[in-house]
Amino acid sequence: MTYEINETHDPNLKSWVESANDPNTDFPIQNLPFCMPWPATDLPHLGIGIGDYIFDLNQAIVAGLLGSGFDPLAEEIELCDLSFLTEVYGTAILTDLRRSAFEVLREDAEPEIIEDAKDCMVLMSKADPELAFEIGDYTDFYCSIYHATNVGSMFRPDNPLLPNYKYVPIGYHGRASSIVISGTDIKRPKGQNRTDQEAPPVFIPCKNLDYEMEVGFFVGRGNELGTSIPIGEAEKHIFGLCLVNDWSARDIQAWEYQPLGPFLAKNFATTISPFVVTMEALAPFRTKAFEREPGDPAPLDYLADVNNEKFGGIDINLEVFIQTEKMRAENIEPFMLSRSNMKDLYWTIGQMLTHHASGGCNLQTGDLIATGTISGKEKSERGSMLELSWRGTEPIQLPSGETRRFLEDGDEIIMKGYCEREGFRRIGFGECRGRILPAD
Amino acid sequence: MTYEINETHDPNLKSWVESANDPNTDFPIQNLPFCMPWPATDLPHLGIGIGDYIFDLNQAIVAGLLGSGFDPLAEEIELCDLSFLTEVYGTAILTDLRRSAFEVLREDAEPEIIEDAKDCMVLMSKADPELAFEIGDYTDFYCSIYHATNVGSMFRPDNPLLPNYKYVPIGYHGRASSIVISGTDIKRPKGQNRTDQEAPPVFIPCKNLDYEMEVGFFVGRGNELGTSIPIGEAEKHIFGLCLVNDWSARDIQAWEYQPLGPFLAKNFATTISPFVVTMEALAPFRTKAFEREPGDPAPLDYLADVNNEKFGGIDINLEVFIQTEKMRAENIEPFMLSRSNMKDLYWTIGQMLTHHASGGCNLQTGDLIATGTISGKEKSERGSMLELSWRGTEPIQLPSGETRRFLEDGDEIIMKGYCEREGFRRIGFGECRGRILPAD
Repeated sequence: MTYEINETHDPNLKSWVESANDPNTDFPIQNLPFCMPWPATDLPHLGIGIGDYIFDLNQAIVAGLLGSGFDPLAEEIELCDLSFLTEVYGTAILTDLRRSAFEVLREDAEPEIIEDAKDCMVLMSKADPELAFEIGDYTDFYCSIYHATNVGSMFRPDNPLLPNYKYVPIGYHGRASSIVISGTDIKRPKGQNRTDQEAPPVFIPCKNLDYEMEVGFFVGRGNELGTSIPIGEAEKHIFGLCLVNDWSARDIQAWEYQPLGPFLAKNFATTISPFVVTMEALAPFRTKAFEREPGDPAPLDYLADVNNEKFGGIDINLEVFIQTEKMRAENIEPFMLSRSNMKDLYWTIGQMLTHHASGGCNLQTGDLIATGTISGKEKSERGSMLELSWRGTEPIQLPSGETRRFLEDGDEIIMKGYCEREGFRRIGFGECRGRILPAD
Repeated sequence: MTYEINETHDPNLKSWVESANDPNTDFPIQNLPFCMPWPATDLPHLGIGIGDYIFDLNQAIVAGLLGSGFDPLAEEIELCDLSFLTEVYGTAILTDLRRSAFEVLREDAEPEIIEDAKDCMVLMSKADPELAFEIGDYTDFYCSIYHATNVGSMFRPDNPLLPNYKYVPIGYHGRASSIVISGTDIKRPKGQNRTDQEAPPVFIPCKNLDYEMEVGFFVGRGNELGTSIPIGEAEKHIFGLCLVNDWSARDIQAWEYQPLGPFLAKNFATTISPFVVTMEALAPFRTKAFEREPGDPAPLDYLADVNNEKFGGIDINLEVFIQTEKMRAENIEPFMLSRSNMKDLYWTIGQMLTHHASGGCNLQTGDLIATGTISGKEKSERGSMLELSWRGTEPIQLPSGETRRFLEDGDEIIMKGYCEREGFRRIGFGECRGRILPAD
């Protein structure tokens, strides 16, 4: 069960990696997320985040630190991402690797183990991360009822929420090839714009460029084509989570999206954070599923499950910051645009996964499934600039004296996520960053 | 230039493979499409269709038949699909392989070459094909104005065509994982159905299961993220074509598709034909782009090009047949449902590709891009059952005495495609077949 609390969640447990014991670190020994750092002089290795470091699993296996059970991997792990390992050895090997790393990194490990492990540490600030999974297919949902209501209100004030919303976890297929890792610059896309309804459309750089604060989850074990995944089994197929910025070109979207949905408005780039936070690490932060309003329909049977109801939500604080070129020049810290929480999603990740496979669609190891923009009830909890500036009508004031309706060239968006709960160590997701470059 | 006629198009040229000289074959020596057959006792090999046979390129290279230039491939070609070869060696290697095969397969090849080549022949009927490219991303367009108008008429009789249609090649991202090869059975999907608007939706087997007659093209050379592909260069990035059946669950689609487009209605399966017919083979069948009505807007500059205007269309006859369980039991031949032509598409494949990359989206080797349902002006040219039965209101009469509004369990859909032009050999695409199995 992914909701089970065990020894790895013990808040009193410390690591011999000092920075992992800082109460503000995203990466205490209770987290240990996977990543694919690319040390400057080497090929990408699989690693695990701990404090300010990445524990290089490749080196650790070769050094025999993780136990003889991983010997067969010694030859293969170089260049192997999580997709390869899962496909060949099953998801259990990732859990085993993480548990073995946990034993090596704990404060009370044998001194000679600690000595050897120190040679396997890469400073996080020196690592250039790659995608940890090979993402075959990418799907984006639309599971925040607050976001859907906000966006709907702008276009259909009388009837903001479509009739299917409370029955169907709405989603669409995204573009896998343009998923990039945090830190990659984002070029402003060009596209057809028909803001002036009286004139023909023009092909120009996007005017209403936006971000969307989302969380994504990676499929661990897939399902065969033509089979489905019962809601009670859904979480067994989910391996871990990351932050997602679903960059969106609102002017392009408004003109192109009828009748088949967003296309070029979304496929120029999607940024994800490099760390895959495991479902095991998230166990203490599970919460009940969204509490529906009286009169709202219950989920249909194929999406209903007692455990999903009790533990399907995840309490993750999500923060979005902006730093403009002027702010950087004037040493003004990034400014917080919004703060929302994943537990406010109308549908759980289990329901998203089960719905996705309910018609027989085969999910595969490494597929990325994102939640859609996560907004909360309050104005301060709106997860996109479209909502914050209410379609550009209420410009956002920045501490530099600037205002923003949408993103300008040079703006950097920084997303953060973390979990906190009394009696447990805080764990975090690291950052999901991207800076806007001008169009060609 | 992919429009150039050369020696390989000479209609008088014959092959020593007798069945390739049959005027009705899909695979004369002027075609030579790629495929990945899987001989029963072996691993998948790369091959080329010729008459009733597949010429096994793997064996041919090992036997030294294709020239020493391919020696480096002798070790690698086993299990190598077109994606691997293109990524490692560039698309030119595929053109070279095909040209070398052409020299081996022509009637006037050296007798000893012919003798050796006979050992490299696999009977097509004994081969179990695989996907020839590893498909990273799959995109489906909506480029038949007749199809868009038909579908639009059913839902918005006064205003069938949306205002963006004549400016934007409308497309959406499809699901790559559920693309299957011709001959794979298709299980009827389940999904949410809200045909009865007065009652809550129910989760049941799809009632309005449909096919869509499409053509797909494979990306040969891709583009980097953040760059675009000028319309004048577009066809250099297209390697070849296949037939596509975009199976569609109309009742699921009607309920789920607002506001983000089709999702589960399409992702349970997409069938493609196993042969990749090269752009080179199609050169004699290029036609002018769609002739727009007076008053229709011209394509925006980024989609306009003289060569595209003159040669952007492709004259491919497309036929759809059905054979029901009863028809099979009574030995009634498959019945032709429709006959349309790819040249009737409103947008060319070059325009689709250029539009796709116009915002900076990176296309990759092996990506499949489909046209959307290809319907013509006439009733007999409607490329889906939704259109033929006009949303089920005009049932189709079959020679078995049965009628069809949508597909029933046991129905098999067989799609065919071929090119004919005075002064050239007929070339064909083979078949794209799929039979409906009952839902679980």
